Amino acid sequence: MADTLQTAPDFSGWSCPLPLRDHPVVVMGHGGGGALSAELVRHLFLPAYGGEQLEGLGDSAQLTLGGARLAFSTDSYVVRPLFFPGGSIGDLAVNGTVNDLAMSGAVPAYLSCAFVLEEGTELATVGAVAQAVGAAARAAGVTVATGDTKVVDAGHGDGVYLTTAGIGLIPDGVDIRPQRARPGDVIMVSGPIGQHGIAIMSVREGLEFGAEVTSDTAALGSLVQAMLAVTPELHVLRDPTRGGLAASLNEIAAASGTGVVLEDRAVPVPEAVANACAFLGLDPLYVANEGRLVAFVPREHAEAVLAAMRAHPDGRGTVIVGECVADHPGVVVARTGLGGTRIVDLPLGEQLPRIC
Amino acid sequence: MADTLQTAPDFSGWSCPLPLRDHPVVVMGHGGGGALSAELVRHLFLPAYGGEQLEGLGDSAQLTLGGARLAFSTDSYVVRPLFFPGGSIGDLAVNGTVNDLAMSGAVPAYLSCAFVLEEGTELATVGAVAQAVGAAARAAGVTVATGDTKVVDAGHGDGVYLTTAGIGLIPDGVDIRPQRARPGDVIMVSGPIGQHGIAIMSVREGLEFGAEVTSDTAALGSLVQAMLAVTPELHVLRDPTRGGLAASLNEIAAASGTGVVLEDRAVPVPEAVANACAFLGLDPLYVANEGRLVAFVPREHAEAVLAAMRAHPDGRGTVIVGECVADHPGVVVARTGLGGTRIVDLPLGEQLPRIC
Repeated sequence: MADTLQTAPDFSGWSCPLPLRDHPVVVMGHGGGGALSAELVRHLFLPAYGGEQLEGLGDSAQLTLGGARLAFSTDSYVVRPLFFPGGSIGDLAVNGTVNDLAMSGAVPAYLSCAFVLEEGTELATVGAVAQAVGAAARAAGVTVATGDTKVVDAGHGDGVYLTTAGIGLIPDGVDIRPQRARPGDVIMVSGPIGQHGIAIMSVREGLEFGAEVTSDTAALGSLVQAMLAVTPELHVLRDPTRGGLAASLNEIAAASGTGVVLEDRAVPVPEAVANACAFLGLDPLYVANEGRLVAFVPREHAEAVLAAMRAHPDGRGTVIVGECVADHPGVVVARTGLGGTRIVDLPLGEQLPRIC
Repeated sequence: MADTLQTAPDFSGWSCPLPLRDHPVVVMGHGGGGALSAELVRHLFLPAYGGEQLEGLGDSAQLTLGGARLAFSTDSYVVRPLFFPGGSIGDLAVNGTVNDLAMSGAVPAYLSCAFVLEEGTELATVGAVAQAVGAAARAAGVTVATGDTKVVDAGHGDGVYLTTAGIGLIPDGVDIRPQRARPGDVIMVSGPIGQHGIAIMSVREGLEFGAEVTSDTAALGSLVQAMLAVTPELHVLRDPTRGGLAASLNEIAAASGTGVVLEDRAVPVPEAVANACAFLGLDPLYVANEGRLVAFVPREHAEAVLAAMRAHPDGRGTVIVGECVADHPGVVVARTGLGGTRIVDLPLGEQLPRIC
């Protein structure tokens, strides 16, 4: 292939960030949603085709077309195994993209659905994934409007890879972006964290942690609309998927130039997740979720938004976990039970590869 | 994985079309854009999540959101090799989705871009693909607004898979769909056919066919707008990618319930493509194109549309290749040089796997 690569641009003068400077190949952590992913975006994708929307780095792009304010988002799904306790790659592919749209306050409307199938995969497996896509789309109230199928040779895939993109309509008066976090904002999480990552880990590695942990995968569009019915003045929404709550809070702190203080004891970690994390040496703050959101809410609306979230089936477990401050801009700090503080860094990669 | 598949729906009563009834696994032809692809859509995807837009089976979905008429489309790209004479996977991923939007008459506006990278791929290769995406997007006048990156283990991918989705705005008064073909329509092709498929084949297999054949990959949004400036009354547009001109004409004949008559001698096949096809035993009508369109134009506008196409850099080679008739509905027939006719079938799969 060397000959045909002659047309490729010269990357020799290109700034390849540590730790890859001496070994510039793709590593698993580039797909982990942490610092390595961020470096790839900043040093490779943005210089190639970055623009205003892409540089916003929200869960979805916000744009105006034909007078309509739209949210637009995409994610590829390469989770292993394809089916796991509480869901499947089909559920993730719908809910993940629906949630990215909802995190801008949009009402998710239409999805695209593109399959890359591996030669030799049973059609019954493909059918089961497609049925899961259909059921999840109906539950989320979105329409699969367009699709594509490609097939790769046996040994060049992993059964099913699935890429969805989605479009939603952003209501008038709503402006929800990571940049809008303000000191004084109250930070809430819509339920227990860490379930999705641990569910994948348990089935993949054949581990048991007392009670079975099931994925929290769910579509959050309806919960977000219930929150917006209280006030359109929500500042930031984010679904803490790859990289967990820690990555989401770091991204918001960096984008807004504010500090985040997290109350360690307030973060809701189910006992089975805590046990699994202790056993595996993981920090639940870094474990992926697929049906939770973190919200930055102006203090004057916090009580009413909290009540509305708790009244919604997808937000019954909502708790306040911290606040946004003017100190230590860009840095996330956790207050420990003993009154000390520790810095919560952006993870380098993902503790568990291929969890979505 | 058997245990976790318990939640999968029962597919035992499910109609699995021949030739797969006794061997229901994914074969390369399911990704080929021919009869096998159509069976997968009809029997597997549409029952799972089909709706009005998906069942339209155009190159893109047409929908209304916030008062705006939008086209929405997606395609995954798994072409091998990543770089080939005349282009790369990055060019295809932009131009392919832009063209799908343009085939509804839409002005392409925004793209999403999702990478599935294989662990161990050189970052310089990823960078070169990203640069190609950026250059193609600028040439097509579209903005990459959102993206995603996932990484799969070495041996479970093929360097780079790329999925784009796109949104475009459909002008008022434009209604271009496969269903709108009418007897009397004049059928035009915007230039020589077969170049993309043969270019891929030649570099993959190390074959030479006299002159080098380069891919025709190009964005056709500007050409379509030039055609619409003549009349908004275009009936059908289609870019004959996988399955070639034969697949596109068969899909249009089936969707509209009309017949298609193709003049064999009028179909523009470059000499190098003809030689390669003769050597390889391929029919140029079935070879993929990535920068051509086929148009069904009402007879009264044919002359003016032809002139406008020939005046445009991407349509200089436009020729009339046939007409739409009331006879033999759903069937495509070619008139041979000797005055006979032959049926041009929908291909079963794709002659050349993984050409896009």
